[in-house]
Amino acid sequence: MSTESRILCPQLQQKVMSADEAAAMIPAGATVGMSGFTGAGYPKAVPGALAERIKAHNATGAAPFRINVLTGASTAPELDGKLAEVDGIELRLPFQSDPICRDRINTGSMNYTDLHLSEVSQYAWSGFFGKMDIAVIEVIGIREDGSLIPSSSVGNNKTWIEQADKVILEVNSKQPLRMEGMHDVYYGTALPPHRKPIMLTEAGQRIGEHYLRCPIEKVVAVVETDSPDRNSPFKKPDDASRKIAEHILEFFDREIKLGRLPKELLPLQSGVGNIPNAVLEALDSGPYKNLTAYTEVIQDGMLKMLKSGTLSVASATSFSLSPDGIAEFEENIELYREKIILRQQDISNHPEVARRLGVIATNGMIEADIYGNVNSTHVMGTRMMNGIGGSGDFARNGYLSIFMSPSTAKDGKISAIVPMVSHVDHTEHDVKIIVTEQGLADLRGLSPRQRALEVINKCAHPDFKAQLLDYYERACASGRGMHTPHLLSEALSWHERFEQTGTMKPE
Amino acid sequence: MSTESRILCPQLQQKVMSADEAAAMIPAGATVGMSGFTGAGYPKAVPGALAERIKAHNATGAAPFRINVLTGASTAPELDGKLAEVDGIELRLPFQSDPICRDRINTGSMNYTDLHLSEVSQYAWSGFFGKMDIAVIEVIGIREDGSLIPSSSVGNNKTWIEQADKVILEVNSKQPLRMEGMHDVYYGTALPPHRKPIMLTEAGQRIGEHYLRCPIEKVVAVVETDSPDRNSPFKKPDDASRKIAEHILEFFDREIKLGRLPKELLPLQSGVGNIPNAVLEALDSGPYKNLTAYTEVIQDGMLKMLKSGTLSVASATSFSLSPDGIAEFEENIELYREKIILRQQDISNHPEVARRLGVIATNGMIEADIYGNVNSTHVMGTRMMNGIGGSGDFARNGYLSIFMSPSTAKDGKISAIVPMVSHVDHTEHDVKIIVTEQGLADLRGLSPRQRALEVINKCAHPDFKAQLLDYYERACASGRGMHTPHLLSEALSWHERFEQTGTMKPE
Ligand SMILES: CC(C)(COP(=O)(O)OP(=O)(O)OC[C@H]1O[C@@H](n2cnc3c(N)ncnc32)[C@H](O)[C@@H]1OP(=O)(O)O)[C@@H](O)C(=O)NCCC(=O)NCCS
Ligand SMILES: CC(C)(COP(=O)(O)OP(=O)(O)OC[C@H]1O[C@@H](n2cnc3c(N)ncnc32)[C@H](O)[C@@H]1OP(=O)(O)O)[C@@H](O)C(=O)NCCC(=O)NCCS
Repeated sequence: MSTESRILCPQLQQKVMSADEAAAMIPAGATVGMSGFTGAGYPKAVPGALAERIKAHNATGAAPFRINVLTGASTAPELDGKLAEVDGIELRLPFQSDPICRDRINTGSMNYTDLHLSEVSQYAWSGFFGKMDIAVIEVIGIREDGSLIPSSSVGNNKTWIEQADKVILEVNSKQPLRMEGMHDVYYGTALPPHRKPIMLTEAGQRIGEHYLRCPIEKVVAVVETDSPDRNSPFKKPDDASRKIAEHILEFFDREIKLGRLPKELLPLQSGVGNIPNAVLEALDSGPYKNLTAYTEVIQDGMLKMLKSGTLSVASATSFSLSPDGIAEFEENIELYREKIILRQQDISNHPEVARRLGVIATNGMIEADIYGNVNSTHVMGTRMMNGIGGSGDFARNGYLSIFMSPSTAKDGKISAIVPMVSHVDHTEHDVKIIVTEQGLADLRGLSPRQRALEVINKCAHPDFKAQLLDYYERACASGRGMHTPHLLSEALSWHERFEQTGTMKPE
Repeated sequence: MSTESRILCPQLQQKVMSADEAAAMIPAGATVGMSGFTGAGYPKAVPGALAERIKAHNATGAAPFRINVLTGASTAPELDGKLAEVDGIELRLPFQSDPICRDRINTGSMNYTDLHLSEVSQYAWSGFFGKMDIAVIEVIGIREDGSLIPSSSVGNNKTWIEQADKVILEVNSKQPLRMEGMHDVYYGTALPPHRKPIMLTEAGQRIGEHYLRCPIEKVVAVVETDSPDRNSPFKKPDDASRKIAEHILEFFDREIKLGRLPKELLPLQSGVGNIPNAVLEALDSGPYKNLTAYTEVIQDGMLKMLKSGTLSVASATSFSLSPDGIAEFEENIELYREKIILRQQDISNHPEVARRLGVIATNGMIEADIYGNVNSTHVMGTRMMNGIGGSGDFARNGYLSIFMSPSTAKDGKISAIVPMVSHVDHTEHDVKIIVTEQGLADLRGLSPRQRALEVINKCAHPDFKAQLLDYYERACASGRGMHTPHLLSEALSWHERFEQTGTMKPE
């Protein structure tokens, strides 16, 4: 397919230029809304060209050139990596997972605001982030009337185009044009007091349009690209992931037998990563049929499930596929187009919809404490890993929230079950199920002390169990409050010990 | 009005008996759903009769007689107080604020599960709490067909009646019968995958029925009572409350000028207590007209606002009025009946509706930390105060979340702004505004380090400001992560110091 044929709007053909020319339109200090969600659908050329420009600018010794970068979620080295490398980002939101970005955040040279992904567009609309100067959006084609065929992620693109004064489009001919028709862009949102119910009652329902609207006069540049999304191969599930998946499947079986879950379960939300992928694989080899997914990201595991019929439909806002996954997707795209819907992230993660559909939220965590509080973001209380992402959108409002992790990290030196988490992203009120390879703790309806025993006995690694019980028992004997017994001077000592000695184990 | 005339259903007239006889039907170990929300509409007689029975039973030296008590929210001495006094409660949920209960919880003799109030009924329906044996519900009248006129709170009554095997009704002739018609009981809820949109788009809209349905054959006893709800006089707003209210009004003014709030604001949710009441008073003496409330509880302040026209309508699930408030309410009940709607708590607090309406959530807190995490429940990390109540329902899903407290407690010995909260109920992702009498910190869009300076500079008491800055600066200089700088070995030391020396101030 020739590149020209992807820009069908005559006025916009006139605006085609190089990435360097387009990047020159982004001023220092600008707030820039970029496309991109979990390494899919981010602009491939303009961020890098801008980074070059920033580097050249900074080499002159002039005042630093920095911009605020707002995206859907994480992007890739071509965007976050390049801009962070030249120290070009003043403020980054709402999510990242880039090593160079992370380093800048944790050494204090980049401000990062990590937000519930469902809330970003309403904040932008409300004006809480100030004015948006420019949007840089990857699409896979421009139609004759100037409307846009979205790319492999929708993310916040609708909002950025609406909010920005100017729009730069990247038309990426590497993305299969036959994705056209998979997207569902909903133009019914509003700010209060004008909001109406979102009439989604099934994961597979369409409520919007196939295309992004974009006023032609806003578009200041069109850049042609031809590069693939970030995509890394999946590891085969390891032993811990497989055991975690087994515990979850046993749990589902029991809940179905008890009549607390239908045999098609409820729409699955699944975080990204190896453990969630192992859970999907396990579901696919189990007896399940006609499951549905209402989630953020389509991973390889979901393609397999759609093909086998385990999954009848998957709603998300982006793809995160390995090279094999992409090949499979492109080969059978007609099949997948029927069964996959890509929505903007304020709908894919909407609290109203997550609650109504009764999503089963399964997400990774860094650590949990004995009382059921979960830390998803901060290593040792201070260093940002990635961000909360969509986990809060689904965990708070869904039907079940499941948090998963191996019971130890860093070769067994860190316990993922601790006396008190060093940062809270999901409170004791929101965490229903905690799973490690050791077992599954079902916290529903339990008081804090009941939860403590459940978590320690089911989830802790044998190397740390006695140490946790000892903490708990001494906290109970301390004479302080018995609702949530703690020894305040020791509650965070495991983390402190790790920082000082490299292990949470006592000498 | 004579008591007889309130029980119009002939079959149920047959079931009238004494509270002692009714209480005899509650077996040891039972799970009992009781009416009651914030000291309104709780059963007045059966719990006390049951407490007497438990006391007599326990005096025989037999195995302890205890029950699980599920309510709407907090009740009163006649319920929580009496049952806790005889140690008759095994598990209490979802909320309490009773001194005797609190003491049992904090000394470890009562299990307490504190839950988002919007979620209780879905958990009960899902079967997560096990079987409900019996419901004890206060109503203000029984109609000829056996349907029930709800009392001064609706709470979880619909769910308890549906879920319980047996129902005991208390018909309280002290409650004004002219409340009939104020309630709106919605029978459109379901468990997923059968949920439909809740078509509420305005605080004042009615979507349900005036009465509670109740199968006549479930009713095993009807008890007549004639006692008022718990009601305590309001204190006149003190200086700190008035200053907090001023800061909030200034903030609203600014947001209106910036076009980020309409001049009628957005539906107000207001916690219970003196500070929220002061905010209501301040709003009432300001220029506001035609505000709306979508909240849990109608306090005195709201009656005044409804009368003056500051408020056009108030939706809630219960009343919490002072003796003066009750007199005013009864005198002008025709006026208030037009403007007040009482809903079940799964609708008054529903995430879907709170998000759609864009509620402004204003709630009290125990403490906040410099990074914007809020503790609403735990004193010094271990002792339960009341519970999270509805604050999370509104704070997470509403348009703005405002948390308020004087900057110090206990005669200035405790700082309400601390390095790290000793318990997290509302995470940094959910807290938008923090207010003390010192000022208002607007955290929207800020990174953690930006938030720290905003919170310390705007909200901390002068006695603690230097100490907080010192902590923050040393944390920044520690060489650990600069995203959320902390000194783990000191983060909770202020609380520990208070426990040991009676003050958070250093020696
Ligand atoms: C929490 C989260 C980081 C776990 O990621 P994962 O890939 O499943 O888990 P891993 O075990 O591979 O851990 C990732 C890293 O965290 C480290 N880690 C895990 N637990 C840790 C702990 N308790 N303490 C310190 N480090 C820990 C691992 O060692 C690993 O580090 P490395 O990359 O240097 O090897 C990830 O799930 C996440 O970012 N969650 C928040 C966002 C979210 O939930 N999104 C879901 C909606 S899409
Ligand atoms: C947090 C909460 C307890 C504050 O209550 P309040 O009546 O506004 O505030 P007060 O300043 O009177 O404080 C209440 C008590 O807590 C104590 N307190 C307040 N801050 C404290 C702190 N930082 N450390 C220790 N104790 C503290 C006060 O001293 C007072 O104790 P006392 O009763 O022994 O005098 C209350 O708002 C609450 O229970 N919130 C959670 C539920 C909720 O938000 N519901 C809203 C939806 S209806």
